[in-house]
Amino acid sequence: MDQSETLPEIAHTHVSFQDGFALDCGVVLKRMDVAYRTYGTLNADRSNAVLVCHALTGDQYVAERQPVTGKEGWWEQVVGPGRPVDTNRFFVICANVLGGCMGSTGPRSPKDGEPGVPWGTDFPPVTIRDMVRAQQRLVAHLGITRLFAAIGGSMGGMQVLEWVATFPEQVFAAVPIATAAYHSAQNIAFNEVGRQAIFADPAWDGGRYWQSGQVPSRGLAVARMAAHITYMSEQALSRKFGRKLRSVTATGDVTLFGDMFEVESYLRYQGSNFVRRFDANSYLTITRAMDYFDLAAERDGDLAASFRAARTRFCIVSFSSDWLFPTAESRAVARALIGAGANVSFVEIASDKGHDAFLLDEPDFHRTLSGFLEGCAEHAGLAR
Amino acid sequence: MDQSETLPEIAHTHVSFQDGFALDCGVVLKRMDVAYRTYGTLNADRSNAVLVCHALTGDQYVAERQPVTGKEGWWEQVVGPGRPVDTNRFFVICANVLGGCMGSTGPRSPKDGEPGVPWGTDFPPVTIRDMVRAQQRLVAHLGITRLFAAIGGSMGGMQVLEWVATFPEQVFAAVPIATAAYHSAQNIAFNEVGRQAIFADPAWDGGRYWQSGQVPSRGLAVARMAAHITYMSEQALSRKFGRKLRSVTATGDVTLFGDMFEVESYLRYQGSNFVRRFDANSYLTITRAMDYFDLAAERDGDLAASFRAARTRFCIVSFSSDWLFPTAESRAVARALIGAGANVSFVEIASDKGHDAFLLDEPDFHRTLSGFLEGCAEHAGLAR
Repeated sequence: MDQSETLPEIAHTHVSFQDGFALDCGVVLKRMDVAYRTYGTLNADRSNAVLVCHALTGDQYVAERQPVTGKEGWWEQVVGPGRPVDTNRFFVICANVLGGCMGSTGPRSPKDGEPGVPWGTDFPPVTIRDMVRAQQRLVAHLGITRLFAAIGGSMGGMQVLEWVATFPEQVFAAVPIATAAYHSAQNIAFNEVGRQAIFADPAWDGGRYWQSGQVPSRGLAVARMAAHITYMSEQALSRKFGRKLRSVTATGDVTLFGDMFEVESYLRYQGSNFVRRFDANSYLTITRAMDYFDLAAERDGDLAASFRAARTRFCIVSFSSDWLFPTAESRAVARALIGAGANVSFVEIASDKGHDAFLLDEPDFHRTLSGFLEGCAEHAGLAR
Repeated sequence: MDQSETLPEIAHTHVSFQDGFALDCGVVLKRMDVAYRTYGTLNADRSNAVLVCHALTGDQYVAERQPVTGKEGWWEQVVGPGRPVDTNRFFVICANVLGGCMGSTGPRSPKDGEPGVPWGTDFPPVTIRDMVRAQQRLVAHLGITRLFAAIGGSMGGMQVLEWVATFPEQVFAAVPIATAAYHSAQNIAFNEVGRQAIFADPAWDGGRYWQSGQVPSRGLAVARMAAHITYMSEQALSRKFGRKLRSVTATGDVTLFGDMFEVESYLRYQGSNFVRRFDANSYLTITRAMDYFDLAAERDGDLAASFRAARTRFCIVSFSSDWLFPTAESRAVARALIGAGANVSFVEIASDKGHDAFLLDEPDFHRTLSGFLEGCAEHAGLAR
């Protein structure tokens, strides 16, 4: 792996807010960029906006070629003309999260008052609520006072929940997918393994790796590998790879035996690919935001209190084989919402694809999503 | 973490076999040491021997102070006077596995024909069957032709299964605990993350770290942290740590926020402790042996064929919250044994402690074990 393979500098569509953005930690960002993409057309009364919130390693390139990897958007199956989130009907917005590395302000951005010097690990800690408030600035900037819907999976689902809790009047419908109202001890533990792998890479250099032109690609790859296992189910791994061996003669890879299992080769590929499109300090910042997420804690332990002001319609989706955000955690959110008198559908999709299922071809999930949006659109009086 | 903290050289009780030991890979070890410990007294007709097989990071110090850590033996709750494996009655043997780092031949041992140079990553790959055949040499050396019982959890359970498959006449009773007849894709994946973390540590230096006097302690610690999560259940992690925070001011630890979760601090402690007692190249060798374990594959995919020759009595134990070696895998072994006409008990112990349960205070498990051994002892005509 080439340690000097840094993330290319690319111009991303963005809005720059220069009036000071106060973070939950108390720090005020003098300049905050929010990079975003939109799909479809905003209607005359600005009532058809759907905000898509991305997950830990996602980005705003939902339904188009990702400029760094050249690959198709991460949710082309869900967002597009005729798709469950139909861009012939809805105006879809997705913003790169605060702390990210695809054009929104984050550890790679120039430090306030020190042009040319990146924030690095001096970048202040951000919360899921900070990410959501940054998105709300963008949404307001686009002249939208109420989102028709907020939709997202995993950390995207955390943002959806936080949107309703923080801006209850501004979300008509919410779809938190494969998520939870707080990050569990096991999930914090996995994130911590990833962070320690990055810290252990000498190229990380205390987070000041821009100074050497090297990047901590080995540490970041190990972090990605560990995380990737948690995104898949045991069944999916077994079905996809089982115990199949592949020969690695002449690859120069370190192996104690003369060959390796396909699952190992796949993980190495995932790890080495990831470092070409992601920034290690962003990974640290965003995993930390996930770990600190605890919606109930912000309201003295009362999850229902987070939703009491909201008239939002909810569709909560979990996947049966997801062990990172198990169904029980979605059910707890549904219970709290019902306790707050909310309008809630809760669907567990039978799938053996694990947490990743929300990104994959899951017809039942896609039907659930389009059916729910259809009903909400009718209720909101959105013309077809 | 001090990278120069190498494993101390300690004299371990051992037998040295110098007549050539042919490994499954084809390499012949000219010298093979098997380090071991015994507890209790071998009876006159040598019929009361119980072999305990240790897990990946275990050792032969089952029921006494471990000489490196100074801590009590890893199975004091199970092995000892009046314990389920009663040393007033049984003669208990435990050998450090081949490839290990507590006195049995492994990557730290001097290379055949090159005194003073450790094997390092030139140490040939070993299999679970090689480990078992090495133990059998020790058992024969002690004048024992049949073990009363072979007992072990996790990788120790793999050895127990392999003992019966390879030496069907030499095991009267077998207790494979929290184990499986093959390593799953998910388990291989987790092992691979650990290996990549070690490879990524520059101190590993292609496995030749003895040359610098440094050890790849950061990589090995990350490997241990990742593995440690898999040893616990989500419930156990939640109960033990939940989302409790602790302040880390003045520790010099890298954190983006001013404090960290207790689960993180625990994992870091586990990681840094581990590197003081384990060798990185042994970790690579032994995880590889686990990954390659597939009892049925050795018999053309027919697991039952592995046990057809055996009259051994089996007690198979799993733990309900073990997701590394789930109950389904133990049940598959039980089915194969029943298919081979074997005498099998299968018990799933209700526990929320995960894979680690076999090492912890689990009264139901301990009662199961002593009851089974009691019945077998009667059947074997072992006097009280």
